[in-house]
Amino acid sequence: MKFCPSCGTAVASRVPPGDSLPRHVCDACGSIHYQNPKLVLGTIPEWQGRLLLCRRAIEPRYGYWTLPAGFMENDETTGEAATRETLEEAGARIELEAPFSMISVPYVNQVHMFYRARLLDLEFKPGVESLEVELFEEARLPWKDIAFRTVGLTLKHWFADRARGTFEFHAEDIRLR
Amino acid sequence: MKFCPSCGTAVASRVPPGDSLPRHVCDACGSIHYQNPKLVLGTIPEWQGRLLLCRRAIEPRYGYWTLPAGFMENDETTGEAATRETLEEAGARIELEAPFSMISVPYVNQVHMFYRARLLDLEFKPGVESLEVELFEEARLPWKDIAFRTVGLTLKHWFADRARGTFEFHAEDIRLR
Repeated sequence: MKFCPSCGTAVASRVPPGDSLPRHVCDACGSIHYQNPKLVLGTIPEWQGRLLLCRRAIEPRYGYWTLPAGFMENDETTGEAATRETLEEAGARIELEAPFSMISVPYVNQVHMFYRARLLDLEFKPGVESLEVELFEEARLPWKDIAFRTVGLTLKHWFADRARGTFEFHAEDIRLR
Repeated sequence: MKFCPSCGTAVASRVPPGDSLPRHVCDACGSIHYQNPKLVLGTIPEWQGRLLLCRRAIEPRYGYWTLPAGFMENDETTGEAATRETLEEAGARIELEAPFSMISVPYVNQVHMFYRARLLDLEFKPGVESLEVELFEEARLPWKDIAFRTVGLTLKHWFADRARGTFEFHAEDIRLR
């Protein structure tokens, strides 16, 4: 059972007039409460051809490696969210470059997006959600211990684009295997 | 006052342990309810150099012209959301092309994103949220009656890119004037 965030009454799940999908509708106060996908924003911080990864100190995927990323908050832009997450998770200061990948993950109602970024110094250090933070060259990258498929895909595109000598914007979807 | 969607109890707004921002925290059931930005997805449907716009039949901006777009729903990808909105608002069947613009609008907690698209036929017709749907060439476009700044920006980029002969991905932010 779900309750109305506006008035606390139990809500019904039904299709409102003029709509096409079931919503949480409150018969007490008349409000309709929509559920929408969340944006996850992150960066691909580079230092002289090596990329900065964080080893996760939290679930899901405790102990696996990821790019710094997290849920975008209200009142910020996509670039601000990516920069903030990079500072929070990796203690890393960056210069944000172009958006690089956008990957829909419909089975968890998320869209993941990563910006290219240039690390400004080597003063990075793990935030509370990271066990360690480390720079990896392509040959040493922990491919088998990457936390999320969106991160693995983004890293593959990054190294492939670098090899071709030009970075493009990559948009794709991930489905349940 | 806000109420917990999980148990219906009044929630407090405070910073949970390990977090840095105030959230809606429920002391009765322990759940934390996050507020995050919403994604608005749409298309720029083209037919022989002309673009398809919809005149809005709903607020906000009743009577003004817009590209077909709307809130992304759970269980869909960005491309599916853009295609669905184009069918719902303009009755238009399209072949989706590349993502074209991504514009953060932090003061309303939204990110707007538009794909380029090729109109498949001329059978379009207004949906319930549109008064009329019409193809415009650049010189006839109703620039003074565009509903939203993200749509105006996207249209300007589209015509500028077409004039240059190459379409790029455009990422930017809009602030309160």
